[in-house]
Amino acid sequence: MGTLGKHYLLDLKDCRKDRLDDMDFIKEVLLDVAKEAGTAVIGESFHRFLPQGLSGVVLITGAHLCIHTWPEYGYAAIDIFTHGDSFNPEEAARLIVDKFESKNPAIVELKRGF
Amino acid sequence: MGTLGKHYLLDLKDCRKDRLDDMDFIKEVLLDVAKEAGTAVIGESFHRFLPQGLSGVVLITGAHLCIHTWPEYGYAAIDIFTHGDSFNPEEAARLIVDKFESKNPAIVELKRGF
Repeated sequence: MGTLGKHYLLDLKDCRKDRLDDMDFIKEVLLDVAKEAGTAVIGESFHRFLPQGLSGVVLITGAHLCIHTWPEYGYAAIDIFTHGDSFNPEEAARLIVDKFESKNPAIVELKRGF
Repeated sequence: MGTLGKHYLLDLKDCRKDRLDDMDFIKEVLLDVAKEAGTAVIGESFHRFLPQGLSGVVLITGAHLCIHTWPEYGYAAIDIFTHGDSFNPEEAARLIVDKFESKNPAIVELKRGF
């Protein structure tokens, strides 16, 4: 049994604020992450709050990506869960940090399972 | 600023195995959690693996729920993310543990934000 899933929690501070409130940009980032990993997107759902902020979830074969943003603080909480080998969570995390231009990212890896 | 989101990670061991492979049951549980909290479901996506196992994500106003199951081990990895006050993550966690009849649940609460 052992580790069944890897769960990366990203707390991204000092991001580009405009990008944290841009639905099209965020969708593109998360779908690009799936595409770069060569995995299929099963489903996605996004919601934009007023006056600002956004939440989104993407289900991928062998993985999920979730994001919640606070543009007013330049902050995003993201999590990447993977199981199996099709998806490299470290590469995904790196790509996401780059895209939001976070100057102060904190990434924690948790092993899920036994 | 401070805490912007609460993130509960549930590692549920010794669950009822049949329930971990039952798409209809799992959908019902997660949608019930949203309903009990009086919050709206924005979107949902589920996928069943062959020969067994299931992944699902549900986006709720002010929250998300994700689940990945391994019926063969009686194990489920679940996470509940909430921001705002509309959704009580502790009640949601309790309901989910009950529904899967986990005899060995581990729940970790993480604060997300600053």
